[in-house]
Amino acid sequence: MTRHRTTAALAAALHITAPAVGQVDAARDAAATYREANERAILTEAMDLLRLPNVAPNREDILANAHHIVGLMEARGIDARILEAGDAMPAVYGELFVPGATRTVMLYVHYDGQPVQPENWASDPFDPVLRAGRLEDEADIVDFDAADNFDPDWRIYARSASDDKTPLIAMLTAIDALRAAGLGPNVNIRFFLEGEEEYGSPHLRDLLETHRDLLDADIWLIADGPIDQRGDPRLILGVRGVTSMSLTIHGAERVLHSGHYGNVAPNPAARLAHLITSMRDENGRILIEDFHDGIAPIPEAAEQFIADGAFDEDSILAEPGIARTEYGPGAPYGEAVMVPALNVLGLSSGAVGDETRNAVPDRAEAAIGFRMVPGQTLEHLRAVVRDHIEAQGYLVLGREPTSEERLAHPMIAELHWSSSGYEAAGTPADAPEITYLHGLMTEASERPVRVVPLLGGSLPLAYIAGVTQTPFAIVPIVNPDNSQHAPNENIRLGNFWDGIELYAVLLNADWAFD
Amino acid sequence: MTRHRTTAALAAALHITAPAVGQVDAARDAAATYREANERAILTEAMDLLRLPNVAPNREDILANAHHIVGLMEARGIDARILEAGDAMPAVYGELFVPGATRTVMLYVHYDGQPVQPENWASDPFDPVLRAGRLEDEADIVDFDAADNFDPDWRIYARSASDDKTPLIAMLTAIDALRAAGLGPNVNIRFFLEGEEEYGSPHLRDLLETHRDLLDADIWLIADGPIDQRGDPRLILGVRGVTSMSLTIHGAERVLHSGHYGNVAPNPAARLAHLITSMRDENGRILIEDFHDGIAPIPEAAEQFIADGAFDEDSILAEPGIARTEYGPGAPYGEAVMVPALNVLGLSSGAVGDETRNAVPDRAEAAIGFRMVPGQTLEHLRAVVRDHIEAQGYLVLGREPTSEERLAHPMIAELHWSSSGYEAAGTPADAPEITYLHGLMTEASERPVRVVPLLGGSLPLAYIAGVTQTPFAIVPIVNPDNSQHAPNENIRLGNFWDGIELYAVLLNADWAFD
Repeated sequence: MTRHRTTAALAAALHITAPAVGQVDAARDAAATYREANERAILTEAMDLLRLPNVAPNREDILANAHHIVGLMEARGIDARILEAGDAMPAVYGELFVPGATRTVMLYVHYDGQPVQPENWASDPFDPVLRAGRLEDEADIVDFDAADNFDPDWRIYARSASDDKTPLIAMLTAIDALRAAGLGPNVNIRFFLEGEEEYGSPHLRDLLETHRDLLDADIWLIADGPIDQRGDPRLILGVRGVTSMSLTIHGAERVLHSGHYGNVAPNPAARLAHLITSMRDENGRILIEDFHDGIAPIPEAAEQFIADGAFDEDSILAEPGIARTEYGPGAPYGEAVMVPALNVLGLSSGAVGDETRNAVPDRAEAAIGFRMVPGQTLEHLRAVVRDHIEAQGYLVLGREPTSEERLAHPMIAELHWSSSGYEAAGTPADAPEITYLHGLMTEASERPVRVVPLLGGSLPLAYIAGVTQTPFAIVPIVNPDNSQHAPNENIRLGNFWDGIELYAVLLNADWAFD
Repeated sequence: MTRHRTTAALAAALHITAPAVGQVDAARDAAATYREANERAILTEAMDLLRLPNVAPNREDILANAHHIVGLMEARGIDARILEAGDAMPAVYGELFVPGATRTVMLYVHYDGQPVQPENWASDPFDPVLRAGRLEDEADIVDFDAADNFDPDWRIYARSASDDKTPLIAMLTAIDALRAAGLGPNVNIRFFLEGEEEYGSPHLRDLLETHRDLLDADIWLIADGPIDQRGDPRLILGVRGVTSMSLTIHGAERVLHSGHYGNVAPNPAARLAHLITSMRDENGRILIEDFHDGIAPIPEAAEQFIADGAFDEDSILAEPGIARTEYGPGAPYGEAVMVPALNVLGLSSGAVGDETRNAVPDRAEAAIGFRMVPGQTLEHLRAVVRDHIEAQGYLVLGREPTSEERLAHPMIAELHWSSSGYEAAGTPADAPEITYLHGLMTEASERPVRVVPLLGGSLPLAYIAGVTQTPFAIVPIVNPDNSQHAPNENIRLGNFWDGIELYAVLLNADWAFD
């Protein structure tokens, strides 16, 4: 792997001043030096935090974590407090203002964790252990107290080791390291640490709206999720939104003999097939009228990031046995997830296999999910989908039809929207904040930075973007094989150390782009 | 209801000679007179037969029935015997040749019955009782020994009361009545009585092929099933064939996240929808190339029978809540079942309802049934369906794909045909046998004869038609509300009596059409 060192010309192109390039190296070195001298203390701080059970909505546990984190911040002179809003699990807020700094960075992680089934773990999820490698490779537990050095391939095993407690410790340690070297931070720092993200963020919007006056920043940096599969740094600029509907086509009032009623009773399964086909072509393109309203064209910078290898295209497809992307067909992976997707999540009608009966089903149900891109609103999506179904000739109801409606309407659909949808959120690939951040990250790493214009998956970042109207970027640090949301979650020490260096670089910068 | 009495002109049009019209009346009167004088004896004979349990494949029970029936025939001078073929339940064969007769009628019923769950019956299914009306109307049981007359609205309740033991007794009684009046029979009569029809006729073809030399006839008359819903006599000229397939579209090797893989992994449910849509339009028309090969145009006589009210169109649709027939849309019921049907019997993929996950399913399965019409062969149907799927771009396998096949083929389908299909069978509506039979039936009844060119449902008559190459017609006698295949099967005495008269007419005729 060639080192991607920024030349002066590149620095200019990236809107980084030449002195800033020097500052990147200084910050990295400071972080490395500090970390080498304090590995045991840093790990102790991380493992102490991991020892606190943190499954929402267990308020007592979550509150204990919040108080502990407030303590970690106050010990560093960060003005910290707990934020409440109605029934929300507490969030932790902190601020560290730097004299002379003109810009503010908001750091986001969540400190709650996924539920655990301890019987599926190799060790207690809330009693962190250090292993001399991967559990899958049968690495043994290391005696932490007796260890005199810490190999970067060693790992901490505990719930939230990667998702997201250790990234928080990396951020705090980055501040320690900069101070120890007499460098930054050179930007005002705020923290917004969520306590119910793994529980679905049901009150995130409430929290943000209630405490909006604390949330002014130039950019939100979110240290959730893993780095690139290839081990490269990753910069994610957006996430798709998500919603879903249950769509039922009604046929006759009861299941009917397929001989006496085949061609006679409407076949709801065949009708559902026609309706799906009317909404989505064979290559994933959505055919619903006005569905794409509000979606901006893909910026050239985004296309370039995809062409530069935003994703490990070949392995993403080959690993689960996919011959080619459906969109296109054969579009690059990054392009396929930059457009909305209509996913048929489920189909059910009559019976298949050994249960098959020679009968015309009385109904056919589909679960249909939508992945939305920035610019689309839930309200508009729901309206155009309903309009489309009606335009195919259906009476659209929110309940079962009555006997009278069945006789009066040859085509009846029943539609229910999931209550849990949220919109996409994204920062344009050519935004100056992103150009600046990308420059810092490129300078900070010897490996290529993988810039993802839009992640296929969804996070409720639309709440953050919507309430704060502030650009955001996801800057993760943890290893991709961290078993997040699963038993035996872990973080590789080398990734933890890299994370400290990366955040030292980000917080040492003054973010004074124009 | 106007009496549909054949005039001399109509008799000519129906190819019935004027003397034949007189013979019809004579046979009816003979049957009525004989029945009135012998009701107790006729009912005793029917109830004695109904007392024998007859659920195939209980060979001992079936054989006891066969021997009993042979006895009933021999008592009438019919040359009767039991037919065997490998593992087949025994069939009963009988012949009664009439000096001077030039034509032969084959009479078919089955004497086995559907399985019973006695706990769901109001009385023992094999201990027939007479009720003074319908069980649904809370009619009481009549003391048979004490009764001195038998109301035509009374009913016998027992397994096979309608399906098909009493129709057999009606045929035998018709012969008794003709003889008592010094009339016919005027046609040679053969009987072929099946003992495993309700068990799926697994050996019917074997039996027919093994004993083909006994089966020469001019027409098979089949007394299975009920008369028209409106209480009118029914003449059915054919039945659709049936087969089905399981069709699975394979996606990625495993279920994938609908965000990270939506538009990327092929969505098997959406693909299945497209494949179904390619096979069948929204109005039930089958789009598969060459699917309709071999199907003869619908004869004008058949269209006329449909137009004349072959089916009780309004109630067939309204009763189960159907606004209009799917075929067309809005084609007459009789027309909709005269063409092949592609019935989606079941769909399954991923999950719907509360089980819905934001995931791209790895597969989608459909159960698809075909109802075939005369002229179609199973072999051809299977070939053109497979060709069609391949023409849509699919690799068609008879098993799960391997990992290598998944990566080499973007579109993979897995196809399995049911082993239980059989073809349609029908006698053309303008065949001279049918014109003659229709004439007899019209003359025999005061109610309109409902001629059904093709029944939507299926019976394995293709075996009979295929092995014997002889025209057939279904001439049922029993009430439509007989609860066939269900608990509390019954026959209404009035329908029993009418059946005796009808078969007396059919067997008194000489069938000497040209």
